[in-house]
Amino acid sequence: MNYNDIFARAIDRLHEEGRYRVFIDILRNKGSYPNARCFAGHNGPKPITVWCSNDYLSMGQHPKVVAAMEEALHDVGAGAGGTRNIAGNTHYHIDLEAELADLHGKEGALLFTSGYISNEATLGTLGKLLPGCIIYSDELNHASMIAGIRNSGCEKRVWRHNDLAHLEELLAADDPQAAKLIAFESVYSMDGDVSPIHAVCDLAEKYNALTYCDEVHAVGMYGPRGGGITDRDEAAHRVDIIEGTLGKAFGVMGGYIAADKNIIDVIRSYAPGFIFTTSLSPVLVAGVLASVRHLKSSSVEREAQQAAAAYLKQSFRDAGLPVMDSTTHIVPLMIGDPVRAKKISDILLAEYGVYVQPINFPTVPRGTERLRFTPGPTHDERMMRELTEALVEIWDRLELELRKAA
Amino acid sequence: MNYNDIFARAIDRLHEEGRYRVFIDILRNKGSYPNARCFAGHNGPKPITVWCSNDYLSMGQHPKVVAAMEEALHDVGAGAGGTRNIAGNTHYHIDLEAELADLHGKEGALLFTSGYISNEATLGTLGKLLPGCIIYSDELNHASMIAGIRNSGCEKRVWRHNDLAHLEELLAADDPQAAKLIAFESVYSMDGDVSPIHAVCDLAEKYNALTYCDEVHAVGMYGPRGGGITDRDEAAHRVDIIEGTLGKAFGVMGGYIAADKNIIDVIRSYAPGFIFTTSLSPVLVAGVLASVRHLKSSSVEREAQQAAAAYLKQSFRDAGLPVMDSTTHIVPLMIGDPVRAKKISDILLAEYGVYVQPINFPTVPRGTERLRFTPGPTHDERMMRELTEALVEIWDRLELELRKAA
Repeated sequence: MNYNDIFARAIDRLHEEGRYRVFIDILRNKGSYPNARCFAGHNGPKPITVWCSNDYLSMGQHPKVVAAMEEALHDVGAGAGGTRNIAGNTHYHIDLEAELADLHGKEGALLFTSGYISNEATLGTLGKLLPGCIIYSDELNHASMIAGIRNSGCEKRVWRHNDLAHLEELLAADDPQAAKLIAFESVYSMDGDVSPIHAVCDLAEKYNALTYCDEVHAVGMYGPRGGGITDRDEAAHRVDIIEGTLGKAFGVMGGYIAADKNIIDVIRSYAPGFIFTTSLSPVLVAGVLASVRHLKSSSVEREAQQAAAAYLKQSFRDAGLPVMDSTTHIVPLMIGDPVRAKKISDILLAEYGVYVQPINFPTVPRGTERLRFTPGPTHDERMMRELTEALVEIWDRLELELRKAA
Repeated sequence: MNYNDIFARAIDRLHEEGRYRVFIDILRNKGSYPNARCFAGHNGPKPITVWCSNDYLSMGQHPKVVAAMEEALHDVGAGAGGTRNIAGNTHYHIDLEAELADLHGKEGALLFTSGYISNEATLGTLGKLLPGCIIYSDELNHASMIAGIRNSGCEKRVWRHNDLAHLEELLAADDPQAAKLIAFESVYSMDGDVSPIHAVCDLAEKYNALTYCDEVHAVGMYGPRGGGITDRDEAAHRVDIIEGTLGKAFGVMGGYIAADKNIIDVIRSYAPGFIFTTSLSPVLVAGVLASVRHLKSSSVEREAQQAAAAYLKQSFRDAGLPVMDSTTHIVPLMIGDPVRAKKISDILLAEYGVYVQPINFPTVPRGTERLRFTPGPTHDERMMRELTEALVEIWDRLELELRKAA
């Protein structure tokens, strides 16, 4: 047994498949985002424009967020110093949970250190608490939901993406007395499409199933108060558990669920991924509080972001670039090959100062590798025109086909 | 199937067993830690002394840490904005990983959002990469290690706590050709005892097993540079993977592993809990960098903490209080009953302004409920004398026995 050989071969496989990941080393420039500095071995940092961040609304740069974090840092210090149960529960945590519960119209909310762990811990624990539970999972659900479902030990049925007929077929085939949980997302972040939440809830009512909706790419972004697609579609009251992140549109870090009191209390009391971990730094929590409160009353950022996304999609479409059929703020270009996606990304960074990461397996299925752009309220039209021109030039250089409109 | 009934019964069980957890709502006072404010429904916040934080060295309050966080906040903003692979990799992350690799004398290090997820993701992924691997786990290993081992799908052998003969018996009974991994901690945080790292490594060499050592309660605390028990015992080079936290002695938040280049690269490339999550906020990373660098060159905090722990243990022992046989910085008092532990804790908080959380199942086995004190460099002798007197008074009031020395 030569351990090092096994590890080396695992890495070789990534190189062979062209999906060995190189992390781009950057620092954003606060106050002038999407500008940033890239450290790539050449002489000193190089200025770049970031096109793939999930800080969708630039809230990580917002003066209210920065001021709240600075105040908390000076008031209570850096870390929480313990788990929520042992010395790591602060007044900030309690205030933020109340704010998030209100955002989704739920009785309670519970903070986690990340969106990943909120999905993993909640789905894993719900499945264990409900004897014989069957979990129905959309085939494009995020890795963290899949991890939670696997760790729950429950039987799992995978329904074809957004296919209600298939979901109903699966529900109808199971024992009507069995506990059931339907797990899905509102915005699928790599394709940019949206799930039919009301229709899923109709099926959940018909077959007496709980509903769990991951809104990580939607909270802060949709609905009059930024409560996500469930807010926009007035469906929040019909979804049992809404899960969200504090690290994308809210601009900071962490994850949460919102649900009724009992569900919050059982997850709080039984989920190892919640119990056995140092709680979120109060500095982060203070920043999120400011961000959530701001986006509850301001739609300026959301509207500017939607306008930028619409402009970029149209610009790509007009140029014949293979923009995918996104109905949201996400602008994916289909490439379909990991080596080519990385090559385009490398040219953009080296020659145009454009940073967009190639997305490859396991984040998306093999053969659907893509570039995923997330224009925000601070990406202006000139930047988007220049980006489109750069891509057209690269398409030409690599002899790729442009799909000109008829 | 009435979901709400099932959840309500799960909560009732906690009340019946006396282990329903009430989170104490506090804010620490930066600059005057261990003083804090407690919000408990009475008129305004009440001043308390925190005795159970894992910010063991008060580094969460250190001027260098606070200054570094403030600088990063103003330089780059609040959050990382993406996963490490997609826009969330910053120069701070790279610097901190180099600093942590150096701390443990390893080729590389990898950051996670928490110690919990670093254990879960690393053990889970290692087990999946090594076909047929058997994992040997100390019976008192932390919940996050147990979660990782379970999720690896590997066969698991549990060895009696720190019992080398039992570990060897298990190793010898298995196929010599099988991949093997020994997972253990250096400091067991609820008992305060230490594992025999060199002796475990001897067995690992004899039976060709990898070693994984969780140093979360030791990093920053032991060894001339704060590299943990492996640093103190000069054993770091013999342990394949050292895991640590940034949320206890280093005072901030997050987790990491340090190991050779290939191991770091496979975990970085294959672990879902690393890949699919927004990376640590650069504000936190900057704070940790300052903290690790400070504790590499300063032993003042470690020495003051050890002196406080020794003083408090002696004070408890002299008074006949049931202090457990800890050889480290942790001072646990055995109570042995969840209701009584909570009662003592409640009296301390309400009448003495002393905050120490009762520790109950599942954090410790049933019947070994305890109070766990973590005196730090800023808990002075007067505070410790007053704490001892308060406990003796409560022991008397509750008619508990004191074990007077002969």
